[in-house]
Amino acid sequence: MSPKVRRQGFCGVNPLRPSKHCSGERALVEYPGGLVKAAMQSSERFTPLVVLELVSDTKEEAISWLLHRIRDKQHNGGAELMVEQLGHGEAAEEKQNPNLFLIGTSLQRLLSGAEDLGLFKEFNDGSMRGFTNANKQNFKNFHGDGDGFLSMAECQYIIKHELETLRAKDETHIPGYTQAKLYPGKSIIRRLLSKGIMVQMFPLHETEELKRLSFSWFKKIKLSVQPLDEIRHYFGEGQALYFGFLEYFTFALIPMALIGVPYYLFDWENYDKYVIFAVFNLIWCTIILELWKRFSATLAYRWGTLSRKKAFEEPRPGFHGVLGFNPVTGREEPLYPNVKRQLRVFCVSVPFVLLCLYLSLYVMMIYFQMEGWALSFHDEEPTFWTGILVFIPSIIYAVVIEILNLIYRYAAEFLTEWENHRLESSYQNHLVLKVLVFNFFNCFASLFYIAFVMQDMVLLRQSLATLLITSQILNQFMEAFLPYWLQRRRNKKLIRKVKRQQTLTDKELPLEQQVRLEADMSTYLGTFDDYLELFLLYGYVSLFSCVYPLAAVLVVLNNFTEVYSDAFKMCCVFKRPFSDPAANIGVWQLAFEAMSVIAVVTNCSLIGMSPQVKAYFPESEMQLILWTVAIEHGILALKFILTFLIPDVPKPIQIQLAKLEFESLEALKKKKMLETTELSKVQP
Amino acid sequence: MSPKVRRQGFCGVNPLRPSKHCSGERALVEYPGGLVKAAMQSSERFTPLVVLELVSDTKEEAISWLLHRIRDKQHNGGAELMVEQLGHGEAAEEKQNPNLFLIGTSLQRLLSGAEDLGLFKEFNDGSMRGFTNANKQNFKNFHGDGDGFLSMAECQYIIKHELETLRAKDETHIPGYTQAKLYPGKSIIRRLLSKGIMVQMFPLHETEELKRLSFSWFKKIKLSVQPLDEIRHYFGEGQALYFGFLEYFTFALIPMALIGVPYYLFDWENYDKYVIFAVFNLIWCTIILELWKRFSATLAYRWGTLSRKKAFEEPRPGFHGVLGFNPVTGREEPLYPNVKRQLRVFCVSVPFVLLCLYLSLYVMMIYFQMEGWALSFHDEEPTFWTGILVFIPSIIYAVVIEILNLIYRYAAEFLTEWENHRLESSYQNHLVLKVLVFNFFNCFASLFYIAFVMQDMVLLRQSLATLLITSQILNQFMEAFLPYWLQRRRNKKLIRKVKRQQTLTDKELPLEQQVRLEADMSTYLGTFDDYLELFLLYGYVSLFSCVYPLAAVLVVLNNFTEVYSDAFKMCCVFKRPFSDPAANIGVWQLAFEAMSVIAVVTNCSLIGMSPQVKAYFPESEMQLILWTVAIEHGILALKFILTFLIPDVPKPIQIQLAKLEFESLEALKKKKMLETTELSKVQP
Repeated sequence: MSPKVRRQGFCGVNPLRPSKHCSGERALVEYPGGLVKAAMQSSERFTPLVVLELVSDTKEEAISWLLHRIRDKQHNGGAELMVEQLGHGEAAEEKQNPNLFLIGTSLQRLLSGAEDLGLFKEFNDGSMRGFTNANKQNFKNFHGDGDGFLSMAECQYIIKHELETLRAKDETHIPGYTQAKLYPGKSIIRRLLSKGIMVQMFPLHETEELKRLSFSWFKKIKLSVQPLDEIRHYFGEGQALYFGFLEYFTFALIPMALIGVPYYLFDWENYDKYVIFAVFNLIWCTIILELWKRFSATLAYRWGTLSRKKAFEEPRPGFHGVLGFNPVTGREEPLYPNVKRQLRVFCVSVPFVLLCLYLSLYVMMIYFQMEGWALSFHDEEPTFWTGILVFIPSIIYAVVIEILNLIYRYAAEFLTEWENHRLESSYQNHLVLKVLVFNFFNCFASLFYIAFVMQDMVLLRQSLATLLITSQILNQFMEAFLPYWLQRRRNKKLIRKVKRQQTLTDKELPLEQQVRLEADMSTYLGTFDDYLELFLLYGYVSLFSCVYPLAAVLVVLNNFTEVYSDAFKMCCVFKRPFSDPAANIGVWQLAFEAMSVIAVVTNCSLIGMSPQVKAYFPESEMQLILWTVAIEHGILALKFILTFLIPDVPKPIQIQLAKLEFESLEALKKKKMLETTELSKVQP
Repeated sequence: MSPKVRRQGFCGVNPLRPSKHCSGERALVEYPGGLVKAAMQSSERFTPLVVLELVSDTKEEAISWLLHRIRDKQHNGGAELMVEQLGHGEAAEEKQNPNLFLIGTSLQRLLSGAEDLGLFKEFNDGSMRGFTNANKQNFKNFHGDGDGFLSMAECQYIIKHELETLRAKDETHIPGYTQAKLYPGKSIIRRLLSKGIMVQMFPLHETEELKRLSFSWFKKIKLSVQPLDEIRHYFGEGQALYFGFLEYFTFALIPMALIGVPYYLFDWENYDKYVIFAVFNLIWCTIILELWKRFSATLAYRWGTLSRKKAFEEPRPGFHGVLGFNPVTGREEPLYPNVKRQLRVFCVSVPFVLLCLYLSLYVMMIYFQMEGWALSFHDEEPTFWTGILVFIPSIIYAVVIEILNLIYRYAAEFLTEWENHRLESSYQNHLVLKVLVFNFFNCFASLFYIAFVMQDMVLLRQSLATLLITSQILNQFMEAFLPYWLQRRRNKKLIRKVKRQQTLTDKELPLEQQVRLEADMSTYLGTFDDYLELFLLYGYVSLFSCVYPLAAVLVVLNNFTEVYSDAFKMCCVFKRPFSDPAANIGVWQLAFEAMSVIAVVTNCSLIGMSPQVKAYFPESEMQLILWTVAIEHGILALKFILTFLIPDVPKPIQIQLAKLEFESLEALKKKKMLETTELSKVQP
């Protein structure tokens, strides 16, 4: 049963397993539609890349129609991919879903897909160029028929794109499901997903390469940097940029942590000494974000996503509306009036967010009351236990904050879904904005209140420490250990089950079991939560760390473990995600920059409030405030000027991009010149 | 002598003079190089568009070489244009320069030039598309052989581009001038200009059309809007955008002026009532700039410059350096190390600017001293004459400011030239920045001092009025009347001279005299000074107008006359400028936005300082300041959020642009699909 299909091969750059099975797959595509058992006999030549899971009671006619459309030639409107049912459609056990399909394709198909997508690859001269089949031989690492030229992540991304752009022709609905309406041009996969007929579509892990990646990434304790290129090779650019940012952020914090330690050790109780630290904070948070943009551009250029043009964005799977004609494409598709969406945003979402902010403010006030009680209790009879009691309100508050954030997150997702955004990017932006505002308020409101209304620096330091430590512990637990523990239990169950059925000689699972195992793994929901966590940490460090110099040290420590736990999570806990060809960290760059502007304001205020500075203006507090405000405005202006002055893309890459642009202009001119000369020869 | 060459025709859309002389000019190009008299015999068919003026003692060999290169076929590296010497090389008088050359070309050459330049024209379906010869018939207004399709300004722009990209082949220097070095790829025209062999290159006016434009623009008093499309048609997009902005700015000021009048009449002495006016200012200055961006995008889309790709930028004519290889183009060209330029900027230019600012501060202090003397004089013996004396320091200061601005302007130009920028755009940015900072400081420093240091609102109002009125009068004089008067004197002299030689039957000058007349006209130096003036006016209105509500009224009146004087200046005083295909007002948008941010700060401060608001915080001035600062930060944040929220391009144009993008992607895909199907047919 289930012949062990080789899962590494022509896509990955796998020097250990030379692949000889890349040509001649075309035969597979010619098989007639339907569930072919015959195909499995030649499965030694088939490299499954992506898994499609349909619900177990999917109607037979829908399945055979879908498989036919996937296998059909491109000029007939098909995707021209190879597809096979896992385990020949016979479920090993009754409870198992038989409708798992493996998808692969020929090398030639992948290369033409890479050209369609406009993937950028390294050229022989070291520059990055859009891949074309016509001059494929001039690309670096293109040997023979192109085996190993594309990474497996790229192959899977291409297949995903081809599947998502598989469009209905003249079908009015999915066969067998009259309620699942189709219209010419509608993406079939998106309709299957939105109607719940398709459970999921995910790329398969590459066990061998994953092992190597894990080893070089987190299985050995080391102080060297992460293997970003390998991460990109396996998980794609979006993931790699996240890990790059995490690492960059950690290293950027090290100077601050180094300054923080002696501060903490020697001047810990000397609050009026924090001015220098605040000034350092000001400079630091302005510069690191600018430098990150340059570093990120360097990475994105090397990975070929910097100058890649985005394809036309399709509507989200969940988007609904009345059928009409898209004014851009002229295609029939659901339309939803923008006015209605704006009404939903401004009349429901905005009031809801404001209500939540009010609620969060209310919770904060309760916290301050509890804090007051605990302190008065401690002041009456100070014992060891009451000393601990003082910290308890902060801990409870930190836990409540995390819970509120979690609940709010679900509400925000629901609301943003309900706002019915046409594009995934617009959906993401609205979601990020909602979540950010609330999280920012929830996490920092109490600190702002303590710092600027109560002006109690001792309490501020204490609250900051408690919030930071509690949220770190909670995060690490919720993010890595909990899913790991759940996953481990599930895995063990499965392995035990498999062992019961057959004796495993080597530790590797047979393909069928491996696919089922991966299908059951949790889905990685993108880098959203990871960035959000970094954003809040950045806030703790940049806004108030001058009163608690150990904050940077704590964040650095947290980030070091975060690298490991995130890496572990990506490799072992979650399904492999599709790669996401990101050129930058997107809306998060903006969020971090907004935070750094707020940091200028808080740090200037903290400096203005420090006894050290106050001593310079003994007679007039008004003078002090005016000076503080003037200097703050000056720093803000300088910050904006710096943002303009420092180019976002380093000079060498600017030159490379300009060169490419220039060459394409010249080529166009030359082509036109040739045409005119030929024309003038014809018409003398 | 000098046969009257017809100067309107195939380029302009001139319905009065049908043109029948557009084909068959090719013959002209075939004439052998050198100064051909024969060519003039068929000059009835030649439409001169651009004039080249070489110095009168240019060596014969340089002229014949240049003419040969201009006439040579494109595949030989020539410009393939037609060129003729004005008046057959025989100067009518001894003092006149014989080396004026008229340049024209065939219709076909212009159309292919338009394609090279990527000019956007209106398509049959109403969208704007890049012009191509292949589907020229599908463009709107393309009839027959394309007569009247391109405006004369476009034709002249194409010729300018073709002349500027006329490059040296294997010449090592300009014949006859061994010191005028050339290297392969160097633009010949730029070298001639930088060595002073070429005096100027300018496009000719189109007398008929200019008359019509003048009439509809400024010769009749009317309240309707300016004919922006016609201005663009005659002068190009850069000019039309300036006049569009001037008009937009004027209309945007009208509500403020309308509110200002009753304020002035009834509440004039009631300084604590200015809060409402300041709040209005705040909202006004934020919104109008955002709306202008949208309006400007609409104009630029309609004129085809919004989505036009910029061609590769050539080095400026004055740029010098050691010969090396440009890393982008790979061509040999002078290189100048960026470090050296930065050193010049930061070690010379920046200190110089700071020194000038200090000097300006010093002058300001002298002004305040004079003001103090005058006031004390007036207070001792108040008569009518001392009442006038009080205004004299302000008037003197305003005049001194204008003079300082003028001197500084020359210094800034010299310094920026000396900084040796490679690109014209970089030169312009550095120049604008230098001039802006100084002008801002010079014009507004005294007002800031009065408002925030002296806190004397009466003096502020008085200074604002004097500065504004004086600078307006000075500007109108310097800008329009002076050049007009000079020009008129020159014109009269010339016409008298011509009359002496021959009796003019009609009022039109013969071509040769007309060309000489235009060659002697002052050169229009671009929109820089016009925008600068608007920028300062915008500053007066947005920063402090709440204390002097008549400011907006004065600026509106000034702008109405400014439209007329600028229009008059463009049409009658200056040489016709080459059109400049601008898509927006460039760096000025940024300057105006920076000013509106400063306006938020000043208006908030003025509100905070008003007795009305102070009354709300009777006991604590500190509270007042903190609230003012908090509200100011809130407004600034809102401003930035608004900038993000309001899309820069209106929705319908966004859709048009997306449609174009989508269509080109689809066309590419279809082409690729066809290639693959053909390929698969060949290789079965």
